[in-house]
Amino acid sequence: MISKSQSKYIQSLGQKKHRDEEGVFIAEGPKLVTELLKSKNAEVKNLYALDDWLHDNEKLLTDVDAIAINEAELEKISQLKTPNRVVAVVKKFEEKESTTKGKLSLVLDTIQDPGNFGTIIRTADWFGVQQIFCSHDCADLYNPKVVQATTGSIARVKVFYADLPSWVKQQNEIRVYVTMLEGKDVTRMTAIKEGLIIIGNEANGIHDDLLQLANERITIPRKGEAESLNAGVATGIVLACLV
Amino acid sequence: MISKSQSKYIQSLGQKKHRDEEGVFIAEGPKLVTELLKSKNAEVKNLYALDDWLHDNEKLLTDVDAIAINEAELEKISQLKTPNRVVAVVKKFEEKESTTKGKLSLVLDTIQDPGNFGTIIRTADWFGVQQIFCSHDCADLYNPKVVQATTGSIARVKVFYADLPSWVKQQNEIRVYVTMLEGKDVTRMTAIKEGLIIIGNEANGIHDDLLQLANERITIPRKGEAESLNAGVATGIVLACLV
Repeated sequence: MISKSQSKYIQSLGQKKHRDEEGVFIAEGPKLVTELLKSKNAEVKNLYALDDWLHDNEKLLTDVDAIAINEAELEKISQLKTPNRVVAVVKKFEEKESTTKGKLSLVLDTIQDPGNFGTIIRTADWFGVQQIFCSHDCADLYNPKVVQATTGSIARVKVFYADLPSWVKQQNEIRVYVTMLEGKDVTRMTAIKEGLIIIGNEANGIHDDLLQLANERITIPRKGEAESLNAGVATGIVLACLV
Repeated sequence: MISKSQSKYIQSLGQKKHRDEEGVFIAEGPKLVTELLKSKNAEVKNLYALDDWLHDNEKLLTDVDAIAINEAELEKISQLKTPNRVVAVVKKFEEKESTTKGKLSLVLDTIQDPGNFGTIIRTADWFGVQQIFCSHDCADLYNPKVVQATTGSIARVKVFYADLPSWVKQQNEIRVYVTMLEGKDVTRMTAIKEGLIIIGNEANGIHDDLLQLANERITIPRKGEAESLNAGVATGIVLACLV
């Protein structure tokens, strides 16, 4: 049973303003919530789930404030079209910014679509890229659609927001790769161990002040007619070639 | 000015049942609609747009029943969260099924998410793959979200629905590649000129009756922790390696 004020509180977390004030975000569905419960990085503060789910996951819930709810209550607090058994309130991650030395890092310039942003985080996780640096106008990491699209990778990949041009300038001696419509064929390049890979907005590409900092322009050769690739798909192809 | 009955008609096309009955679908936004107007394959039956858009695109509209509407009317007929200047009613494509000989074809097994499905069509178009064969339980090609996600590639890539196991069996001597979590590393393969590349559902993979027809199992090597890749991203990586 969930109280009216709890229900209101959860609904309010659909908005960035309230997530920022409270320092928490919402995660939904068995797969995502189980990943967060198992993760050492994530702290699940409250959890609301159907009886059978609570029963099946008893062992994961020893330290969690878990409340049983019915289908109607779930429907009310869920942000999903098809509510999926469990909703968790999770503490935002507090990541210390780490070095770019000796690592591949992704850099996202104005990736505003939440689904694309989440998919990129998931793709980075698949390829073992552990940190992503984003411009301030990228989607909010804790937007429910971003969280869902990461399918749990949000617990593993570190995401930082920065003023990209000045931040990139500070990364001394780290090579900067930018994905463009023209450049070196990425499918013919060999893996790299260290570097910043900048992915731009689908419609507008990469901002000029970032382009000027590039050491290498790379491209995914077009063999057909489409004008562009989805940003998530482009990231996947670049990482498959360079990791 | 749009009549009440026109407005109702357009809204009804959000549903598959009505699209099937009428043999038409909805396309929205300047980029998509312009691509369809320029395409030889597509027949735009009616078009509703803001005055300035009609004025800017006069030359494309010589054969089209185009009606000027205001922002409020656009808002009413649009299926988009952010209506974007123009809504077109377009005749469904009538494609004759063509041979798989000498070509690369994509085969989609139960790709139900409209955004993923549209992104896959767009990605195929980027890589010059001209035909896609889908199981009957894939998303509807003319679902507005699919149409939007193709960003115009719907006018170029041919999409057919088929009972996949029996259809694949009929493709004599065409090699069948299936994407799996284990198999031959696709990033080390060389391009192929002919074949069927089967992409499966993210959660459930490829159905057994299709798997049995595979000549080659291919995989995108995982170097990190994510359990799976988004189906659109996986398609992009496979095509970047094999086209």
